[in-house]
Amino acid sequence: MTEHLLFTLAIVGGTGPEGSGLGLRWARAGYRVIIGSRSREKAEAQAARLNERLGETGLIQGMDNAQAVRHADLIVLTVPYEGHRQTVEAIAPMIKNKILLDVTVPLDPSDVTRIRRPAAGSAAQEARQILGPETRVVSGFHTVAQAQLEDPESPLACDVLVCGDDPAAKTQVMELVEAAGARGWDAGPLDNSAVSEGLTSVLIGINKRFHVRSSGIQVVGVPR
Amino acid sequence: MTEHLLFTLAIVGGTGPEGSGLGLRWARAGYRVIIGSRSREKAEAQAARLNERLGETGLIQGMDNAQAVRHADLIVLTVPYEGHRQTVEAIAPMIKNKILLDVTVPLDPSDVTRIRRPAAGSAAQEARQILGPETRVVSGFHTVAQAQLEDPESPLACDVLVCGDDPAAKTQVMELVEAAGARGWDAGPLDNSAVSEGLTSVLIGINKRFHVRSSGIQVVGVPR
Repeated sequence: MTEHLLFTLAIVGGTGPEGSGLGLRWARAGYRVIIGSRSREKAEAQAARLNERLGETGLIQGMDNAQAVRHADLIVLTVPYEGHRQTVEAIAPMIKNKILLDVTVPLDPSDVTRIRRPAAGSAAQEARQILGPETRVVSGFHTVAQAQLEDPESPLACDVLVCGDDPAAKTQVMELVEAAGARGWDAGPLDNSAVSEGLTSVLIGINKRFHVRSSGIQVVGVPR
Repeated sequence: MTEHLLFTLAIVGGTGPEGSGLGLRWARAGYRVIIGSRSREKAEAQAARLNERLGETGLIQGMDNAQAVRHADLIVLTVPYEGHRQTVEAIAPMIKNKILLDVTVPLDPSDVTRIRRPAAGSAAQEARQILGPETRVVSGFHTVAQAQLEDPESPLACDVLVCGDDPAAKTQVMELVEAAGARGWDAGPLDNSAVSEGLTSVLIGINKRFHVRSSGIQVVGVPR
């Protein structure tokens, strides 16, 4: 029994395809996973659907966001950018001394292929600004296409850039990346998150131009 | 004889390792190449060294930056970010109706692994702001490590993101990417250049952590 079996992840916004896809992979890898939603009923219903896909009962739980955050060691935020600030502010009182993995991409609905720059520099920096120094913010998973997450059996054929200012928190997130089936790279401080978040728009543009659904990036030139 | 043999490239800041490495590759691919420098003597001396490496006489020419820009169809800018604004302003009168390929990365000398954001958003957007609509600005080559350019025989084992607002200019730059031995990707509008420029800092950080010199990225998930 490895250490992470004692580790509980709450996925805020977890009823969406990205949060649910990641939750399924992490549950399979042995993590305790809580799906969070503003509506407890929606969270419970989605957890039931995911447990059915896993062929297990009760492995994944559903709670409202506040309860989910309280029960978790690490919180994963997968919300549309439009709800980002409001959600971070809502969970701020419950998240002190915990780790926030922010997966949010600030897409511009009027043109998702053009990068959008929040005033703080990136969505993750905005979360850091709201939460202050008591919460360790790490960002990652922006380069993983939603379409890739739909099949929890297949390895993710792309790399993930992980940004953050706390080395220990970044190491824990790198383990989550591996557990989800991708290769993670320490991409430097949280200030670099704009690169990883912006890659999403670049990759969506490539998807459109080449009529594919899951372009991604791989880091090359480093012996494995 | 293909069309690009009639095409002249000026490399402003071409005496540096990146400009010279690209110039050698493009000369081999059949382009007319002019190395530009603030000092005509330095440019001529570097052109002579590059011709010697090519085993040819006079294939690559050296000129001061202003002359180089006047003689060229497309201008490649490879200067340290500290000299970027000044250089763009100096060549602005000569570059109207031409294409500028901006290779500049706004590195922060105090920490090259942390992205730095010019007020305009990126170095390439800054060039566009200075030059106005009469010059078509395209950016690219930020993800190619200097160490990779040193051997002009070897293919570049990384991909290049190309950003720009003018499709025809972007197509010409994509041909230059292929001619240099790399694979180019249309990464969207010039506003997206911050992603490609910022990747340089991310890759320098990976180089340091893994004790390598030439990490890069490849786009995956697109059938070739």
